[in-house]
Amino acid sequence: MAEHFSEHISTQFDADLNAIRTQVMAMAGLVEEQVRLSMKALASGDMSIINQVIAQEQKVNAMHLELDDMCVHMIARRQPAASDLRLVMTVIKSVEDLESIGDKAHKICLRAKSIFDSGKMQVPKFQEVNHIATLALDMLTRALDAFARLDSASAAEVIAADEQLDQEYRALQRQLITVMMEDPRSISLTLDILWIAKATERIGDLAVNVAEHVVYLVKGRDVRHKSQAEVDAIAKG
Amino acid sequence: MAEHFSEHISTQFDADLNAIRTQVMAMAGLVEEQVRLSMKALASGDMSIINQVIAQEQKVNAMHLELDDMCVHMIARRQPAASDLRLVMTVIKSVEDLESIGDKAHKICLRAKSIFDSGKMQVPKFQEVNHIATLALDMLTRALDAFARLDSASAAEVIAADEQLDQEYRALQRQLITVMMEDPRSISLTLDILWIAKATERIGDLAVNVAEHVVYLVKGRDVRHKSQAEVDAIAKG
Repeated sequence: MAEHFSEHISTQFDADLNAIRTQVMAMAGLVEEQVRLSMKALASGDMSIINQVIAQEQKVNAMHLELDDMCVHMIARRQPAASDLRLVMTVIKSVEDLESIGDKAHKICLRAKSIFDSGKMQVPKFQEVNHIATLALDMLTRALDAFARLDSASAAEVIAADEQLDQEYRALQRQLITVMMEDPRSISLTLDILWIAKATERIGDLAVNVAEHVVYLVKGRDVRHKSQAEVDAIAKG
Repeated sequence: MAEHFSEHISTQFDADLNAIRTQVMAMAGLVEEQVRLSMKALASGDMSIINQVIAQEQKVNAMHLELDDMCVHMIARRQPAASDLRLVMTVIKSVEDLESIGDKAHKICLRAKSIFDSGKMQVPKFQEVNHIATLALDMLTRALDAFARLDSASAAEVIAADEQLDQEYRALQRQLITVMMEDPRSISLTLDILWIAKATERIGDLAVNVAEHVVYLVKGRDVRHKSQAEVDAIAKG
């Protein structure tokens, strides 16, 4: 009888943990889709894609709250320890970052919508942002991949990639300032483009946060506020 | 003997929880000081204040990691339940926001330092940002106060105040765009001011996050992604 009971508890424990795992991957997939669609919307000006991202924002928010709730209940009812607790803590933090990433994609689409509606922009659309958008999306994809595969070495690569994204953002910023100085009538639109570039760069930062959580999950060490050399030593050691 | 044992556990439990409470209030105090000093540095151009904020950033980061660690250990060893678990979860989330607020103050000072060093700016310094800086600092002070006093009604007021801050930020943004259009030579400096204004507005957003955590702590309800009417009904009910 005691054995059955313990087996029952353990099975429920595993089921709850698996439900969290499955749900966080579903949320990650949705958020990645939101970013991918927002980039596509910028390049194409396709209003149906913009509206899809805006409509899906509610779903991201709902998953955020649901996962947070699942994690708190898991801690309260099942008292996970060691690596199970690390997984729950990782999910609690990662869903904050995923929600913020989804929020950026949503706000990029709101901004793009208002730009396209105002008729301020012609094709080719937002080509300046293409390059850093590709970098940021790639970092996000690799961070989520590292999470799914519990691959701390890949996570460390994502953390390292942020330096290049920052450099590209600063270069773009300088370029856009020159555009504004040469043609003051373009200031308003150029500031919108700069804003979108900044939001894109922030998606890269948030992907780094997720990658840091992955290293914590796999290695049990907090690598936030550490140098890249320290991160590499921990994550790849 | 059993009673003694249980008392011992309970005492240790309380001591751990109190240590977390004390430490999060210490971190909150430090972060609030960082914001206050960064605002003072903007207005005065006083390089010793700027250097103080930059030097104290390390301390904020160390407290962030320490508190996070204290919370995970509390969960793992003491298995808090009900309102104790809510406190721990609230601290875990709030320290992320506090760290981000400290980071903004730090970055504002780095940016101000580079502006003052370049000799681009004369007195009066950053007077455009004064007003929203006052609003954001007030929101932060009230959010931390609500946390210390477990006052969900005050927390709801902080959440409501964000709308005004956003409006003031947008008004300032329009005003600065006009400045840039009228004098394209001012674009680079005006963008720096705009960046500082944005970072200040973000401090207000992060104060709202803390206020949302306070409502959760006191009322046990997650008010993120909810309308102000819903927030008020939960927080003041």
